[in-house]
Amino acid sequence: MNTYGELFKLTTFGESHGPAIGGVIDGCPSGIRIDMQAIDADLARRRGVGPETTARKEPDEVEFLSGLMDGVTLGTPIAFVIRNCDAHSADYNSLEGLFRPGHAEFAWNEKYGIIDHRGGGRASARETVARVVAGAIAKQILGGHGIVISSEIDSVGELKENDTAGGIIRCICNGVPAGLGEPIFGKFNAQLAAAMMSIPSAIGFEMGLGFAAAAMTGSQFADAWNDEADNEEKPTITNHCGGIQGGISNGMPIEFRVAFHPIVTTPGELRCRDKQGNIRSVDVGGRHDRCQISRTTVIVEAMAALCLLNNLMKHT
Amino acid sequence: MNTYGELFKLTTFGESHGPAIGGVIDGCPSGIRIDMQAIDADLARRRGVGPETTARKEPDEVEFLSGLMDGVTLGTPIAFVIRNCDAHSADYNSLEGLFRPGHAEFAWNEKYGIIDHRGGGRASARETVARVVAGAIAKQILGGHGIVISSEIDSVGELKENDTAGGIIRCICNGVPAGLGEPIFGKFNAQLAAAMMSIPSAIGFEMGLGFAAAAMTGSQFADAWNDEADNEEKPTITNHCGGIQGGISNGMPIEFRVAFHPIVTTPGELRCRDKQGNIRSVDVGGRHDRCQISRTTVIVEAMAALCLLNNLMKHT
Amino acid sequence: MNTYGELFKLTTFGESHGPAIGGVIDGCPSGIRIDMQAIDADLARRRGVGPETTARKEPDEVEFLSGLMDGVTLGTPIAFVIRNCDAHSADYNSLEGLFRPGHAEFAWNEKYGIIDHRGGGRASARETVARVVAGAIAKQILGGHGIVISSEIDSVGELKENDTAGGIIRCICNGVPAGLGEPIFGKFNAQLAAAMMSIPSAIGFEMGLGFAAAAMTGSQFADAWNDEADNEEKPTITNHCGGIQGGISNGMPIEFRVAFHPIVTTPGELRCRDKQGNIRSVDVGGRHDRCQISRTTVIVEAMAALCLLNNLMKHT
Amino acid sequence: MNTYGELFKLTTFGESHGPAIGGVIDGCPSGIRIDMQAIDADLARRRGVGPETTARKEPDEVEFLSGLMDGVTLGTPIAFVIRNCDAHSADYNSLEGLFRPGHAEFAWNEKYGIIDHRGGGRASARETVARVVAGAIAKQILGGHGIVISSEIDSVGELKENDTAGGIIRCICNGVPAGLGEPIFGKFNAQLAAAMMSIPSAIGFEMGLGFAAAAMTGSQFADAWNDEADNEEKPTITNHCGGIQGGISNGMPIEFRVAFHPIVTTPGELRCRDKQGNIRSVDVGGRHDRCQISRTTVIVEAMAALCLLNNLMKHT
Repeated sequence: MNTYGELFKLTTFGESHGPAIGGVIDGCPSGIRIDMQAIDADLARRRGVGPETTARKEPDEVEFLSGLMDGVTLGTPIAFVIRNCDAHSADYNSLEGLFRPGHAEFAWNEKYGIIDHRGGGRASARETVARVVAGAIAKQILGGHGIVISSEIDSVGELKENDTAGGIIRCICNGVPAGLGEPIFGKFNAQLAAAMMSIPSAIGFEMGLGFAAAAMTGSQFADAWNDEADNEEKPTITNHCGGIQGGISNGMPIEFRVAFHPIVTTPGELRCRDKQGNIRSVDVGGRHDRCQISRTTVIVEAMAALCLLNNLMKHT
Repeated sequence: MNTYGELFKLTTFGESHGPAIGGVIDGCPSGIRIDMQAIDADLARRRGVGPETTARKEPDEVEFLSGLMDGVTLGTPIAFVIRNCDAHSADYNSLEGLFRPGHAEFAWNEKYGIIDHRGGGRASARETVARVVAGAIAKQILGGHGIVISSEIDSVGELKENDTAGGIIRCICNGVPAGLGEPIFGKFNAQLAAAMMSIPSAIGFEMGLGFAAAAMTGSQFADAWNDEADNEEKPTITNHCGGIQGGISNGMPIEFRVAFHPIVTTPGELRCRDKQGNIRSVDVGGRHDRCQISRTTVIVEAMAALCLLNNLMKHT
Repeated sequence: MNTYGELFKLTTFGESHGPAIGGVIDGCPSGIRIDMQAIDADLARRRGVGPETTARKEPDEVEFLSGLMDGVTLGTPIAFVIRNCDAHSADYNSLEGLFRPGHAEFAWNEKYGIIDHRGGGRASARETVARVVAGAIAKQILGGHGIVISSEIDSVGELKENDTAGGIIRCICNGVPAGLGEPIFGKFNAQLAAAMMSIPSAIGFEMGLGFAAAAMTGSQFADAWNDEADNEEKPTITNHCGGIQGGISNGMPIEFRVAFHPIVTTPGELRCRDKQGNIRSVDVGGRHDRCQISRTTVIVEAMAALCLLNNLMKHT
Repeated sequence: MNTYGELFKLTTFGESHGPAIGGVIDGCPSGIRIDMQAIDADLARRRGVGPETTARKEPDEVEFLSGLMDGVTLGTPIAFVIRNCDAHSADYNSLEGLFRPGHAEFAWNEKYGIIDHRGGGRASARETVARVVAGAIAKQILGGHGIVISSEIDSVGELKENDTAGGIIRCICNGVPAGLGEPIFGKFNAQLAAAMMSIPSAIGFEMGLGFAAAAMTGSQFADAWNDEADNEEKPTITNHCGGIQGGISNGMPIEFRVAFHPIVTTPGELRCRDKQGNIRSVDVGGRHDRCQISRTTVIVEAMAALCLLNNLMKHT
């Protein structure tokens, strides 16, 4: 389904080349003044800069349709839309009926039996523009509780001639109080893993030391209690577990990394498949990123913010 | 909360040292004959063998309370209990009011303000016994649809003297049809990530090539279409993405790896913390594994089975 | 929350005097051609005719933002908006800070601490315009399965000079197959009751004979089996239970009645209450219906359609 | 499904003639001492007294399997079972393959294709024993917040020779604070309607004046503000709406009535139907109530308590 969250719920809608992308936030607390400039700043980060990002330059103008009176939340659903005004659908005509390698189209067609071939349709990463709007609002609310989310590029693949690259993003959430999360199936780390793996191209997730921890001994790995006077602020000396124990935050910063595979649409001819199983070489037009990692940091933050805010609201 | 799944729903209950561990399966299709020996075999795998596993040897006798008539499912909730008959609660008296390093107790206490100190209480890995029962049933139903789940130890840490070890488990799901999963927030890989990270000690998850894919180029990574005659059976030549594209299965085997950190209760004295923040050295009695990886394979399979069956039931 | 349904999910948004009312339908099957004229016809029924209905005459022009390609559903979320172009917000200025008798404003303010005083804001019956759009789509899909929903005015209060009236609406759903619904908490009749009681001013609900059945004997009430040859078509001779037994449809028409109390905003002066508990007489401007029953039939059908379609989709 | 509630969740299980009936409560706050005698007293009310109630006399001994330590809640799932020790399954052998008139068996068979013919199986009103246990716990928690639920028989049908009767139950919830509930689809009255209509034999529901309100004028119906000094305690003079306006409680007592049709299994021969549509007269053995209304008051209270507690927990 197209909804994320239980208390601060985001439902997104829209196809890459349809009239608009948008979302409805249900459960936003009332009485909060929204900083529209902060939303625009995050949208600009998602649009990206530099030669490796897409040539599609949307202004990404957000119109709010409900839930606000004089810029303050009413506690009712906040609906917003961003019109698709730079959609060159004709670029994709050569792709009708074809499935690109590594893309969702083949699997999508197996599920739905119909597909919008224009720029990925609903499967396009353009859907994340709605997540960024909601994430920017969530970050503002979290900020009011002293929680600050930041992210950085941990590593990025080498950008070879006529090829694409992926990378790894590290995210740190400071100020998260102890006691957030759930102990069994809804572990905080399990929720974060799902949130991150829902981002297009995500292929790996790890908390704290992650995969490296599998080769350590218990005495190396276990985070020792901090016995200094200020141990309410920093309960453990190290943070190998990434701030979550038994599915519940322990008051340390929440730290995790997300791996993204390279963009699968490489420049030049692609060997596509049709519905009958025949392979055809096609020069895929459209405009495509060569590396999405710098643009993706703000999406990682947005999903982290939605996940944290839901857990914070459950807690209070 | 303590429920997993939307259509084939498992709710688990029980503390490690309370009267019983158990579960309720809601949504199991009617008319299915349950193979009780297969359940017992999976429970035996979870109990484990060899010198590195726990000294607590429960018979793990499952009593079914509802949902079956003459061994066949009625379509009504299937409740089952496993009595805790080998619980040495007194072993844990020295731990009352103390939080062990690396354990969930500190965070748990922040959340609930009350804690069952006996053997981890609800946070104990003993809770997974209920997952294994439900997973064994789910695997039987999946088997009837040609889906077979297997797992193996990918790597395991070195077992040093007086220390504990973790490891990595690889899981392969064969026979999964194309078209299962959801495209946006409920991506199949996101669901699998959450299911795996909900297993005690899980600290990392990756689909297919996972973190290694972040350093590849798009032309190296993208799985090329198979143009042989049998491409319905095996649609791509390689399976770098692990069988899921855009959140939906593509007909290839679903492959993923889960990293587990070492057990944080190491033999000997532990530096524990009390509620006031004081550190105290305690010899933690009880019986503890030194490495849980071999026992965990069946839990990985159980959670994979619950996740797959929910998606299969949504599909049909 | 603002979402109805589990498989065919409608989320509505919008305040009476904000920019727009709208909704997002998530879970609509793909490949269905939508009849836009049928939607407009239902919207016209909701707007109403005759001297007893509101003077606010919106064109109710629906814009679809997503989920359709060439008028056919894609299986992705269908978002739609209806702009509020005839909102005379200034009519309500005299009401700022006041709670009208019988209205939701007092209770709303207790819950949210903030209130949009313009025309009821989110609590306005204008929200039902989004239900009618979704209901019209649901009725089309149900029609394709041979299910036809109709409703009629069962009784209506007497319209006295300078006063308002309520009434009772009867709804019949023909062609509902046996076996729909759930046996315990999610009984089909329980779902219908909730759907109907969610309509503004609904105050009573009954299946089949309803309250009258409480005074009958079992031998008078129990619907006898039909022993004619065609009993697959009409399994019982009478339909006292209204087509649902034990929470599951039995193949007879589903019949129920919904009682609506009269509109609580009566013409002339109203004794309103302010936040301090003081009473003030105010001439409430704005435009108000004197009887909503004729306009409400299409809302009853819409909610019945959403409820039935969810149960039908669960069944198949 | 077999789960009620979102925050205080009850999942019930068990067939009338299987090993046990039981439930799992998930979301019960931690640190609450449970009064076991109050649970037993409510179970005794459900068993009933007098000549009109069933001859089946279970001791209804509740065993708690989890979630409690020394009688105090841990915040973990509370599982409980009541063994079926007085089940005379053989009484029902003559009913195998037959559908009684007015019962759920025909519709159930259409849904599941398999049916436990012994005493109604899962569809038996014996399932409500689990609701009564959970309701008794919920009433204790509500009592700690000053909320008291009571119910009474409003009217009961005449008990003719060899026949059965139904009736109407009135329920009043005192001490409910203003501001509970939801404004759109999850209106408090809609939730109550669903909770009540989920009780076996419920056929009608009304808030406050209910169906009678449909014939009143607005000036007769609208509850006038109380302008006495104590209007925080009693905000309106009358309570025609039953304490809920626009889906949200207004601080007045919540009042509603539920109509129950007579028991459909009348003494003597019943004209049953088999799977082929043939009609057969059968003397239905087993033990059956002739009027269930006195036993049902405690079930009405239990469902009201579960509904109220969920809304109270959402509010805080």
